[in-house]
Amino acid sequence: MTTQLHADGRLRHFLTTEGLPRQLLLQILDTAESFAGVIDKSVKKVPLLRGRTVINLFFEASTRTRITFELAAKRLSADVLNVNVATTSVKGESLLDMLRNLEAMQADMFVVRHAESGAADYVARHVGPGVSVLNAGDGRHAHPTQAMLDAFTIRRHKGDFEPLIIAIVGDVMHSRVARSQIHALSALGTGEIRVIAPRTLLPRDIESLGVRVFHDMRLGLQEADVVMMLRLQRERMQGALLPSEPEYFRIYGLTEDKLAAAKPDAIVMHPGPINRGVEIDSRVAEGPRSVILEQVTNGIAVRMAVMSMTLGVYQEMPREPA
Amino acid sequence: MTTQLHADGRLRHFLTTEGLPRQLLLQILDTAESFAGVIDKSVKKVPLLRGRTVINLFFEASTRTRITFELAAKRLSADVLNVNVATTSVKGESLLDMLRNLEAMQADMFVVRHAESGAADYVARHVGPGVSVLNAGDGRHAHPTQAMLDAFTIRRHKGDFEPLIIAIVGDVMHSRVARSQIHALSALGTGEIRVIAPRTLLPRDIESLGVRVFHDMRLGLQEADVVMMLRLQRERMQGALLPSEPEYFRIYGLTEDKLAAAKPDAIVMHPGPINRGVEIDSRVAEGPRSVILEQVTNGIAVRMAVMSMTLGVYQEMPREPA
Amino acid sequence: MTTQLHADGRLRHFLTTEGLPRQLLLQILDTAESFAGVIDKSVKKVPLLRGRTVINLFFEASTRTRITFELAAKRLSADVLNVNVATTSVKGESLLDMLRNLEAMQADMFVVRHAESGAADYVARHVGPGVSVLNAGDGRHAHPTQAMLDAFTIRRHKGDFEPLIIAIVGDVMHSRVARSQIHALSALGTGEIRVIAPRTLLPRDIESLGVRVFHDMRLGLQEADVVMMLRLQRERMQGALLPSEPEYFRIYGLTEDKLAAAKPDAIVMHPGPINRGVEIDSRVAEGPRSVILEQVTNGIAVRMAVMSMTLGVYQEMPREPA
Repeated sequence: MTTQLHADGRLRHFLTTEGLPRQLLLQILDTAESFAGVIDKSVKKVPLLRGRTVINLFFEASTRTRITFELAAKRLSADVLNVNVATTSVKGESLLDMLRNLEAMQADMFVVRHAESGAADYVARHVGPGVSVLNAGDGRHAHPTQAMLDAFTIRRHKGDFEPLIIAIVGDVMHSRVARSQIHALSALGTGEIRVIAPRTLLPRDIESLGVRVFHDMRLGLQEADVVMMLRLQRERMQGALLPSEPEYFRIYGLTEDKLAAAKPDAIVMHPGPINRGVEIDSRVAEGPRSVILEQVTNGIAVRMAVMSMTLGVYQEMPREPA
Repeated sequence: MTTQLHADGRLRHFLTTEGLPRQLLLQILDTAESFAGVIDKSVKKVPLLRGRTVINLFFEASTRTRITFELAAKRLSADVLNVNVATTSVKGESLLDMLRNLEAMQADMFVVRHAESGAADYVARHVGPGVSVLNAGDGRHAHPTQAMLDAFTIRRHKGDFEPLIIAIVGDVMHSRVARSQIHALSALGTGEIRVIAPRTLLPRDIESLGVRVFHDMRLGLQEADVVMMLRLQRERMQGALLPSEPEYFRIYGLTEDKLAAAKPDAIVMHPGPINRGVEIDSRVAEGPRSVILEQVTNGIAVRMAVMSMTLGVYQEMPREPA
Repeated sequence: MTTQLHADGRLRHFLTTEGLPRQLLLQILDTAESFAGVIDKSVKKVPLLRGRTVINLFFEASTRTRITFELAAKRLSADVLNVNVATTSVKGESLLDMLRNLEAMQADMFVVRHAESGAADYVARHVGPGVSVLNAGDGRHAHPTQAMLDAFTIRRHKGDFEPLIIAIVGDVMHSRVARSQIHALSALGTGEIRVIAPRTLLPRDIESLGVRVFHDMRLGLQEADVVMMLRLQRERMQGALLPSEPEYFRIYGLTEDKLAAAKPDAIVMHPGPINRGVEIDSRVAEGPRSVILEQVTNGIAVRMAVMSMTLGVYQEMPREPA
């Protein structure tokens, strides 16, 4: 594993939430809080990354994720280049050669999305001292900005993490989001983290992460403060891992009925895009306890925070937008 | 139909020219006039939309149209994101969910292009109070910025609309451009609007729009001040609607010869891209009466006008570019 | 051939290095030198092209080349639009019509990449007086910014061109890079330019360009100060022009062993992307004499120079970044 930190403990890359000290996670949340105000204004721009070059290096298409990073970078006044490697003419160039070339063009940051676990880490190991790497999702490994925007959303609604019961529901096995959430929420001192899933969608060693395992929704949601649904990749259905969609929804789909087991003020989260009627009922997704769209909004602030922290430009928000 | 106006009569969205009061159309033309000066300069930029986010949401590929809106937004200093939904990884996300997500990222404006009539209207009905929607062409329904750039071009050449005879020639039936032109030119008080087309390319109720119908070019162009050609979609030829291209050109193609029926100072317009030798002869398209390229130039100013009016930032042009 | 110069000798387009006076080539190198400082800073931006519109008009996909021009334009604060004509919906529009349209939108510069020789020249012949055209590679004809970044890199390492022996190695026949290099290096007064290649990869009239021809690497590299490797298009292997890749590498691939014939302080160059084990050994590409990544860095400065010179905005670097 590449270290994500400078010698003095400041964030250099942002590859995973695993192993990051609580203090640093709180600093990300606090920094994001200061940006949340900016993006509510009509002039949603600060000049912190003016003249810096951010390259979105996407080896796996994800318009949605690309847009959130592109917007975050533009609101920091960076120059953004989108490089979609899947569709690009690479002339058989190796990843490493491509990377060295982009770096030689004086890129300051790579935002890396890749279908293989460890890809962002690999990129981070090979960039020079002045360059930061953000992981925008690598295989089943990690999706740390998603985890931090989730933590940010939870803190805005619930304040302190210590008294909270947080339930993560669904395909934990294949989810980089779940893995990053568990690491972040643990480090932030969450009282109890639960995972609720069929045995076939749970990694064997899941309990070693300090979570309680449930296979029954009503039991697992009992007294929960936060319900975090995972997206069910439909392609899992083809294999032997799962029954039919209706059958899955009957047992693990979040409905008003099942949600009644949670605390009355529990919030419902989902990383999106949602599969209505597969892992979540439309009424819940759009109901009063859903904070799904707030997560999206908060995602921009969190990405601005991580970008400005890794590039070392964040000190204090300027009073006036540039 | 979504209302395009705020309660106080100001423009909120720009979805169609149908039903817009003359005063508002004139305000668009006047505002565009003030921007026309900006884009002639070497520094073609004003800071009116600084820090605003414009999303080009294209469900139908049209590089040409996308570029005009992207340029207009950039010249207003907005941040622009291009989202090509046709080629995008949407993971089965519904249009509405995608929209809510983009809106949650604090987009200020959606420029919508869609193959289905009513799509921009649908988007406008579902966005929140602070967001504006521009229709960049929806099915056969409307293409209002095209109609306004046409009106702008006509006014620059001819001044007042009242004494004018304007002839619209070609595939009126399938043309969103024609529909938007007729509504705009009517509201602007055009003396006489004519359509010239074979019966198979005219909607049945066309006369209810207050136009005079001609099936013969020489009769229809008689004494015309403005000749507006429509683009002929070549795929129409496959069906039974039309004879061969040469046959169509012989009867309805604009040649110097047919144009002789119009006033000596008549101008020739076309929304582009032109099909040389199908609906228009090259000599006419490039001749002294053609204002086709002026239309393109004016299109930027008109789109800047509509963007700044809907976002409520337009009051008075700053003396100095930013 | 379109003239690239204004009547007073200033650069208007940049289409080829052929026929350009030495003084102008030196001016490009000197201007690039002033930009090289800018892109080393954290705020890598100057406001020279603020409010100007640069359109990357790519008829042949090349993400790598597109990025270098996009970055150069953004670092000059221009608005950049990418138009990928290969994948674009052009509705059967002719190149000329498309060009006139983009020009009517008040584009200031076209950066043209095309698979056919002469394409950039064709574009330059058809644009209006205020518009500049840069050739980003046209067929086998020219790639002048690549040649100038090579010359820039050589001057930084070796100073004056007159005492130098420069060897160009590989597929000269199909290389627009080689052609542009030879013209530039000749005009800059290089002492001796050599080409080293099998007969099948050399144009018949190559000696008329004033180069010395070698078919043997050790003889050709003797006492060379600079070794410029060309990329070997793998598709050449399919034809009868070449033996197998290992066989080609054995004879013409640059290894430490063959490089020993050159001067001890010789530098090794390659336009990228490199084919390891085909035209160059990895150890050489990454060895202490390789300046391949410096070439990439210098490419941005050289493109900034050519952009600002052709648009006539370059006089003196501002003291402060904007």
